Amino acid sequence: MLNERNPIPVVEAIKQVTKYCKKGETEYIELTEARSRVLAEDLIADHDVPSFDRSPYDGYALRSEDTTEVMKNTPKILSVVGHIGAGSVYHKKLEKNQAVRIMTGAPIPDGADAIIMLEDTTTFEESGKSFVSIRKQLQHQQNISFKGEDVKNGTALVNKGTVINPGIIALLATFGYAQVPVAKKPVIGVIATGSELLEIDQPLEPGKIRNSNAYMMIGQLQRAGAIPQYYGALTDNLEESLEKISEVMKEVDFLITTGGVSVGDFDLLPEIYQELGADVLFNKVAMRPGSVTTVAAVNDTLLFGLSGNPSACYVGFELFTRPIIDSFLAKETIGIQQEQATLAVDFSKVNPFDRFIRGRYEFKNGQLVTEPAGKDKSNMVHSLAMANCLIQLPGGTEGYKQGDKVTIHLLGE
Amino acid sequence: MLNERNPIPVVEAIKQVTKYCKKGETEYIELTEARSRVLAEDLIADHDVPSFDRSPYDGYALRSEDTTEVMKNTPKILSVVGHIGAGSVYHKKLEKNQAVRIMTGAPIPDGADAIIMLEDTTTFEESGKSFVSIRKQLQHQQNISFKGEDVKNGTALVNKGTVINPGIIALLATFGYAQVPVAKKPVIGVIATGSELLEIDQPLEPGKIRNSNAYMMIGQLQRAGAIPQYYGALTDNLEESLEKISEVMKEVDFLITTGGVSVGDFDLLPEIYQELGADVLFNKVAMRPGSVTTVAAVNDTLLFGLSGNPSACYVGFELFTRPIIDSFLAKETIGIQQEQATLAVDFSKVNPFDRFIRGRYEFKNGQLVTEPAGKDKSNMVHSLAMANCLIQLPGGTEGYKQGDKVTIHLLGE
Repeated sequence: MLNERNPIPVVEAIKQVTKYCKKGETEYIELTEARSRVLAEDLIADHDVPSFDRSPYDGYALRSEDTTEVMKNTPKILSVVGHIGAGSVYHKKLEKNQAVRIMTGAPIPDGADAIIMLEDTTTFEESGKSFVSIRKQLQHQQNISFKGEDVKNGTALVNKGTVINPGIIALLATFGYAQVPVAKKPVIGVIATGSELLEIDQPLEPGKIRNSNAYMMIGQLQRAGAIPQYYGALTDNLEESLEKISEVMKEVDFLITTGGVSVGDFDLLPEIYQELGADVLFNKVAMRPGSVTTVAAVNDTLLFGLSGNPSACYVGFELFTRPIIDSFLAKETIGIQQEQATLAVDFSKVNPFDRFIRGRYEFKNGQLVTEPAGKDKSNMVHSLAMANCLIQLPGGTEGYKQGDKVTIHLLGE
Repeated sequence: MLNERNPIPVVEAIKQVTKYCKKGETEYIELTEARSRVLAEDLIADHDVPSFDRSPYDGYALRSEDTTEVMKNTPKILSVVGHIGAGSVYHKKLEKNQAVRIMTGAPIPDGADAIIMLEDTTTFEESGKSFVSIRKQLQHQQNISFKGEDVKNGTALVNKGTVINPGIIALLATFGYAQVPVAKKPVIGVIATGSELLEIDQPLEPGKIRNSNAYMMIGQLQRAGAIPQYYGALTDNLEESLEKISEVMKEVDFLITTGGVSVGDFDLLPEIYQELGADVLFNKVAMRPGSVTTVAAVNDTLLFGLSGNPSACYVGFELFTRPIIDSFLAKETIGIQQEQATLAVDFSKVNPFDRFIRGRYEFKNGQLVTEPAGKDKSNMVHSLAMANCLIQLPGGTEGYKQGDKVTIHLLGE
């Protein structure tokens, strides 16, 4: 079956896929499990932070007007009438010439309007009473952390769709989120196809290879924030394959197959899509590797028919599956991060299609510089292990030279 | 207790800590769980990849010498004597003027030395026999993926100490690692201190705040690849605190406390270290925030006494605890990634100590540019949520200007 296929541009293919964006639900999880998950509701402050005027230092709370007479050699003596640890409250009002010993974070007592740091004081006892000698003048409101100065009640702090980092966890804790609303992860099925595939724990046989794509996909799905569900490898049998794929589709949000989308006699996916009544969005993309990448839809369940070639499979996932995962998670930014980088080497080879080269980027004095991660024949899985980006070289040009600016897609490792 | 403390430079403090590097053990885990873990053994190819000469295309395997007479209008007709799917082997030897239909990835049959792509052929049947018409001359060894051309048997592919990404997972699958040797994660205890702390599910009370540092730490520990073990918050009671900390130390590889390391009357950690007979490596670092950061050692168990101030706690963790985790995991690179970036704003404030500002970096035409993530008073947890780097401003200078190059520490979000 040697079908005529019309390649569509990469950008157009991505647009086709993202039309089918399916949004997931919200679930509540423990705060200790929230890191790297996607916040499903805006985080809005429901109280001021600090929630009371407090001391930023260890020292003494006092009335600044009592320090106006302090001169270089004339300290002022105040009577120490209390002691406030963090978490405690001084319940009386501070009177003239009184001071209260106060710890970092403790609330400013009534009547006090300034804090003097411990190192600017001397304490002593006389007749069983405590005194503090003040060596500095203080201004009204000096050294006070004011109620709401960090965050005002009602402030929108973090937008939904943001990936939760440790700083956001601190905010969630501050506002009492023992349970955190996050986007439910999509469950994505993975099926490898091809009679040549051995499982990873099987010994090699002539003509066969171990199934590496499915495990690679599982890693890529985890990295993208999805839950991979691996359904094993299918041999090249149409009826069995069709039955398995129909079953699996009921259990997953999306399905990825690797292999079987080319024009070989055993490439069964095109026929399976037909049997399923799937709407084939495209079956050829103007890119290398992965030109045979196919995406089909049955209602709102997308079937990603990725190439059996490891690099093509990898690239197809990052370009086409990742945005769908981001949409499902309702992330603020959709798809893999793209930046401009300087090429460190020449690419003389001209190609009518866009090329996606497994690359490495690094910083040279703060500037993004990129080069290929290794040999670049598309069957070479070794360079995938070294890659931290994909270098995009638009097709139909004169080739690229060292120093040219190119787009790189950051893989996020 | 107003101790005299001698601040040591940040670099010196890091050096002190990393002297105590404790290396973890190796454990074996499922390949599907291996992503983001640290490889504990060098990954060395134990067979060639491909492990046999194979076809890179769908097409026909043939003897190139049979195509020497092919001219533009004179195709050569070969007899099709077999059909090899991927995973199958053709067990006979190819004779003169014979061809075998072959799929991508299938082994080259004996006697064949070239592959012609399907699109350069026409097939037909005559008297019940299959023939293929060849329209191209082929060279000896044309279109063959050779045994070992991707990876040669014995090649060192990935060094131990490397973080496992999806490409490395593909390699591990290829070489049959159903179980993967990875560095065991360190178990790190987290204890918050301070009578002012409420748990996250408790309602606010006057003078009290919810415990956010411990949860933030848990997130930072997860990000750094450790297993956090949270032991709750201690009130400011020496005896109870000492007992709890002594107990916990038996269960963890390292212990982090937050709060209680300053000079306040309720800052109990200095006394606890003394009671434990701990070797205090330093109790003051020439940095802001976090100058009171203290690290002590009991044998090879490090006790990180981080500040109770959220930003100081955060910075102290990234500078001092993270390298220890990396060492424990025997990572190839130790400590947080540092790069040069261009400042987008002025910092006029002069400080004798190094400052670590919560920052954001982004790329402007491939160039790292950085600015503060928000307000920078050290109690302001909001800017921590927005930060993706720490901007390091060395102390004792004239301040910094927009356009200056500064070191940033990438937080890895």
